[in-house]
Amino acid sequence: MRISELATRSGVSAASIKWYAREGLLPAGERTGYNQTEYGEEHLARLQLIRSLIEVGGLSVAAARDVLAAADDPDHPFGNTLGIAQASLPRPATPPTAASLEQVTDAARAQGWEVFDDNPGLPAAAAVLDRYRALGREDLTATLPGYLRAAEIVAAADLDRITENPSPATAAQTVVVGTVLGDALLAGLRRMAQASESHRRFGPTPGSPS
Amino acid sequence: MRISELATRSGVSAASIKWYAREGLLPAGERTGYNQTEYGEEHLARLQLIRSLIEVGGLSVAAARDVLAAADDPDHPFGNTLGIAQASLPRPATPPTAASLEQVTDAARAQGWEVFDDNPGLPAAAAVLDRYRALGREDLTATLPGYLRAAEIVAAADLDRITENPSPATAAQTVVVGTVLGDALLAGLRRMAQASESHRRFGPTPGSPS
Repeated sequence: MRISELATRSGVSAASIKWYAREGLLPAGERTGYNQTEYGEEHLARLQLIRSLIEVGGLSVAAARDVLAAADDPDHPFGNTLGIAQASLPRPATPPTAASLEQVTDAARAQGWEVFDDNPGLPAAAAVLDRYRALGREDLTATLPGYLRAAEIVAAADLDRITENPSPATAAQTVVVGTVLGDALLAGLRRMAQASESHRRFGPTPGSPS
Repeated sequence: MRISELATRSGVSAASIKWYAREGLLPAGERTGYNQTEYGEEHLARLQLIRSLIEVGGLSVAAARDVLAAADDPDHPFGNTLGIAQASLPRPATPPTAASLEQVTDAARAQGWEVFDDNPGLPAAAAVLDRYRALGREDLTATLPGYLRAAEIVAAADLDRITENPSPATAAQTVVVGTVLGDALLAGLRRMAQASESHRRFGPTPGSPS
């Protein structure tokens, strides 16, 4: 199909399609003549995945490229698929303090978790505790036990999905898509739960529908 | 203080400080002479907040500006503070389908939640279900009940923090900072829980420690 048809069917503009191809997220189409390129169904499927990661998952183009490159590598064993999904976390610009790393590690162990030092979730979580401290809001770390329990429930639901899709190819897609989109799903549901819980505790507030 | 001192104390480069001021996130400093500007402690505190939202919370500069502008408005009643925090969610580029909106609404009501149609979490969550469908992965919606329970636990922890900080000014900061950084904290802990749960179910995998 021509780029105009690919744009219509995928919902991604021709300009963005060219950009994704230039940035290495999308394989190039086949040149069939002067200023004319043919795309196939595989390009359409790939664009659906790219849209999911960028538009709904909120990844930058650079982060999406890294995640896709890792997911495309057939040598990645199943165990590393989790590592791929974990690459989708933004790396903290400033390394977290040892105190916060230890605080997260201790809290996770107290919850019965196995803690791996090379898990990128650890510095990401520790960086948040450092920020609470920089803002003079250490009191916010009191949410940690609740967040740990919530993360455990979500991870169990995630792993159930992987177990039911045991083929390595589907497992990789499940983890990559499920992890990035799962963050977005959880953020959306959390806003809904905040509003519901606020309504339950404090009653209707001015301007809110009751 | 001069911009160089502000940069050192905040950990934000002078170029970024100028950019944030130009984009309206940071109030301008006081011009004290040719090519010389003075900044105060309030600029330092503001930069800590900006860093939290952008570097650790992962917000774009435009999203951080919107969140800060809403949080700065003294006319926002307490009930709308949640609305401000909810503005930090990326809006789906494509409106979600009615089917997905209904699916999220029904699942939330089944969990006993009060559902507000104008809550931005609703279209954000529905957009994720649409993406699962576009990718042919409707099976991933089976995670919804687990995610709902997790969101409920997190929201209860969030509201506990607000209740303990009942002054409107602190409540606004708690919700804005707690919501944006809380998403990042939850995403990090989720990666750690996935690795721990994977280890528990499947044992050590090639390349993983232990």
